Amino acid sequence: MKISPLQKARYEYKPKLPLMLRGGIAEISVSEGAETKSVADCEKIQALFPNTYGKKEITFKKGQNTSTAKKQVVGVILSGGQAPGGHNVICGLYDALKSTNPENVLYGFKNGPIGLIEDNYIIFDDEYIDQYRNTGGFDIIGSGRTKLETKEQFAIVAEVCKKHGITAIVIIGGDDSNTNAAVLAEYFAAKNTGVQVIGCPKTIDGDLKNEDIECSFGFDTATKTYSELIGNIGRDANSAKKYWHFVKVMGRSASHVALECALQTQPNLCLISEEVSAKKMSLSQIADYIADSVADRAAKGMNFGVAIIPEGVVEFVPEFSVLISEINELLAGSKADAFNALATWAEKYAFIEKGLTKASMDVFSILPQSIQQQLFLERDPHGNVQVSLIESEKLFSALVADKLAARKKEGTYKGKFSPLHHFLGYEGRCAFPSNFDADYCYSLGYNAFMLIQYGYNGYLSKISNLSKPASEWIAGGMPITKMMNIERRHGEDKPVIKKALVELDGKPFKFFEANRATWAVETSYVYPGAIQYYGPAEVCDITTRTLALEKE
Amino acid sequence: MKISPLQKARYEYKPKLPLMLRGGIAEISVSEGAETKSVADCEKIQALFPNTYGKKEITFKKGQNTSTAKKQVVGVILSGGQAPGGHNVICGLYDALKSTNPENVLYGFKNGPIGLIEDNYIIFDDEYIDQYRNTGGFDIIGSGRTKLETKEQFAIVAEVCKKHGITAIVIIGGDDSNTNAAVLAEYFAAKNTGVQVIGCPKTIDGDLKNEDIECSFGFDTATKTYSELIGNIGRDANSAKKYWHFVKVMGRSASHVALECALQTQPNLCLISEEVSAKKMSLSQIADYIADSVADRAAKGMNFGVAIIPEGVVEFVPEFSVLISEINELLAGSKADAFNALATWAEKYAFIEKGLTKASMDVFSILPQSIQQQLFLERDPHGNVQVSLIESEKLFSALVADKLAARKKEGTYKGKFSPLHHFLGYEGRCAFPSNFDADYCYSLGYNAFMLIQYGYNGYLSKISNLSKPASEWIAGGMPITKMMNIERRHGEDKPVIKKALVELDGKPFKFFEANRATWAVETSYVYPGAIQYYGPAEVCDITTRTLALEKE
Repeated sequence: MKISPLQKARYEYKPKLPLMLRGGIAEISVSEGAETKSVADCEKIQALFPNTYGKKEITFKKGQNTSTAKKQVVGVILSGGQAPGGHNVICGLYDALKSTNPENVLYGFKNGPIGLIEDNYIIFDDEYIDQYRNTGGFDIIGSGRTKLETKEQFAIVAEVCKKHGITAIVIIGGDDSNTNAAVLAEYFAAKNTGVQVIGCPKTIDGDLKNEDIECSFGFDTATKTYSELIGNIGRDANSAKKYWHFVKVMGRSASHVALECALQTQPNLCLISEEVSAKKMSLSQIADYIADSVADRAAKGMNFGVAIIPEGVVEFVPEFSVLISEINELLAGSKADAFNALATWAEKYAFIEKGLTKASMDVFSILPQSIQQQLFLERDPHGNVQVSLIESEKLFSALVADKLAARKKEGTYKGKFSPLHHFLGYEGRCAFPSNFDADYCYSLGYNAFMLIQYGYNGYLSKISNLSKPASEWIAGGMPITKMMNIERRHGEDKPVIKKALVELDGKPFKFFEANRATWAVETSYVYPGAIQYYGPAEVCDITTRTLALEKE
Repeated sequence: MKISPLQKARYEYKPKLPLMLRGGIAEISVSEGAETKSVADCEKIQALFPNTYGKKEITFKKGQNTSTAKKQVVGVILSGGQAPGGHNVICGLYDALKSTNPENVLYGFKNGPIGLIEDNYIIFDDEYIDQYRNTGGFDIIGSGRTKLETKEQFAIVAEVCKKHGITAIVIIGGDDSNTNAAVLAEYFAAKNTGVQVIGCPKTIDGDLKNEDIECSFGFDTATKTYSELIGNIGRDANSAKKYWHFVKVMGRSASHVALECALQTQPNLCLISEEVSAKKMSLSQIADYIADSVADRAAKGMNFGVAIIPEGVVEFVPEFSVLISEINELLAGSKADAFNALATWAEKYAFIEKGLTKASMDVFSILPQSIQQQLFLERDPHGNVQVSLIESEKLFSALVADKLAARKKEGTYKGKFSPLHHFLGYEGRCAFPSNFDADYCYSLGYNAFMLIQYGYNGYLSKISNLSKPASEWIAGGMPITKMMNIERRHGEDKPVIKKALVELDGKPFKFFEANRATWAVETSYVYPGAIQYYGPAEVCDITTRTLALEKE
């Protein structure tokens, strides 16, 4: 196997653990805190989790290890989209498990949760693990999006565990996967299987965050990678002085990724979906907001700029959501047949015009044709519009071009507007984890094993005080049920971990809000450059602006 | 001004000079070699450059500096597209100029060659220069694409030089800009203006390369940045195991960038435009070639992959070139009016069908509609198709999808094909220069001043032996006319620097060719990771695979 020089060098990197975990396994004792309750809907959550609800918060300390000596057989899965550092969670878990007892065994179930159903696994050994230390990707065992949520699936998982003598499962995933981890933990407890479940908080989107989880892993590396590129694009814009770059960034519904990238790079504009929603902004208002910056800069002779667009923004525009619902309704089931039978776009357009309400048609008619066609032609297997495929970076630049053309006619704008488009997503999910993510993930995995060893079930591996150096981090565990509330999903009340959106009264947004008017008209770009793994600590060990602002 | 931690750290980096330039200005002597002649069309080139043709190759050595002491006033411009390291060329030039005599003056003309015409400049001082050391971008003075090529322009430039007492101009640019530098040098010599012209070889495209120029600056950093991202995408593909990523990379006509990225990342596929041209491949053949790899991998259970597409490839497909010419002809001048008057795409399509030859219509009809429309709707100010805007990554994935659908019907393919698309270009042109580019560019600039100081005109700053450590690099100069031949451009015979395409019998391509069958069906991805500026030398100081293979 040919590997890159950086990969070879990263094999030698020793991730930093919190001080309390550094003394060796024999020196890790546990300290139990108060009993917990869920963030909301306590009674309902307690009723759903009678065996795992209300457990105590726990913290590890330096001291005599008092856990029971028994052979541990553990299984681990990676669930959902890739995030840098996933490999290190497994490496940390493996190292703690083997340090505790060389006879302990770690199973890796392949391709996500489905590996547990299909009993498709590998057993880790040093040689295999060593190839993945401090590397990006989830290729160590693969990942997948199957959900473990039905009783039938749980029964199969229990069988698989019994067959291999597995007594604990570690689930590395996002909010949904950790919700399912809690449900599985409750099932195992109720059935007295003796199998524990521990979750680890993963997602580049940054939306798995609450008073216990300061940040999900992967967010640091992914946003640094996108910020590297946005910085490079900004520098290019400021050198050539002729293009407006519209940069869409991944991140699903929440705008944490966009906001963090804006804090790192100081672009001229960054839309925040949560603000669009709160202010009930229309597409036209958003386009005017962007056009204002384009025009102001043009008036100063600067016909260039950088605008960051969060992936999920169009879903937050009220009128656009209505349009999408109407389209889904218009083409539901067999109704699509009549539409599909029409030969030309003109005929299809007439069909659409007849089928949409006037309000939605007003929205539809201002969209560029390519987006109009995308809405009707690229639908998912259920016939629904695929919102994530909408090229919103092109949508907004087209709307802005229309606004500017109108202003030109009115004589209020005299500049040139040449937009270019980018989508940053897959480029950052599998980068080599930053030192922060390498350390954080290794600690999460190491810590997850300590929770197993001390017999906890339905807990999330929790590392906190993350804005400080790793030596000051605090290792412990929190019952997953503490983070849950009841939400309406697909017409049913379900216990779930609350997804964190950007808080408009939070410090990161407030900082952005206080500066954005300046950034909009000045050229205040910051160029973070590529992630550095070596060099001065201030270059290679500092985590996100979001976390720094939240903890300041 | 807020700057990033990396930018702050990079200010402290001391670029490495070739040993022969390290002893200080007083210790740099010159050694003249043989007289030169142009690579082809010697008589014609000599006739066009009577004053600057045939000059001697020169090399710098450690020894007594014998140049004449006089106050130097120098102007510098950045020309064309951004390339990492441009700032360091100017820093090296400035440092050599000021070390020689603190009274010397460096003018930076703004926004490219037009700055010389408009007399729009700044005068560099330490404080200003220090903000740009080892940084990416061309924002130090901006760049532009105006060409300096007419006698009228030259006369204005001569006036501007006279006004400021400028006795030398350094032109940092690609093949065209250096060609124009040679023409300007000849003009100045013929007119006895006493103004010297020195060129520096810039372009991320890597197509300014010949027996004197081992590589143009910026190629190293840009390809490392793209390879970082392609590696990350490959790791994502190999983790999720469900997408085929089609990655178009910048690089204009030549495929040097694509090939270097392929050598660094070992994707499943990389098209090489020069090979497409040599083999006279049709779109259908290319699509089949890609579909073969998709099908072979699917048969092994791998419904994912990475394919690199060089930006210029469609121009090299003979049938596609013909199609483009016919479209340009069909819509030339007022003929476009009739087309534009048609209301629907169906009517336009009928117009096109009538206007194209059968052979071109056969090609046109297999294109996805979005590409068909792009060819007809997005034309440049002269009414020509904008080939660079063609989303060839989407074109090929659509053609491959058609091929696979046909194979599925035949029963020869049973996989799933989900393509995703990327275009990497602006993300890499303004990255912080790698240590290689930081050193190389600083040396080019430092060396350019030594050529000025020793009185040379019409020379290219030449640093060679680049596959070795910087201490072993060789500094000198080469008459630009040596690299020239006569080519037919826009119906005229013109003296130009020959553009370097990928040589199909060269070692980089041969290495790729020998390995690509394996890479196509195996998953042999290499993950280079982000450019490192600190750390072990093998991680942060090594240049491209292309150069290593060419010099091995």
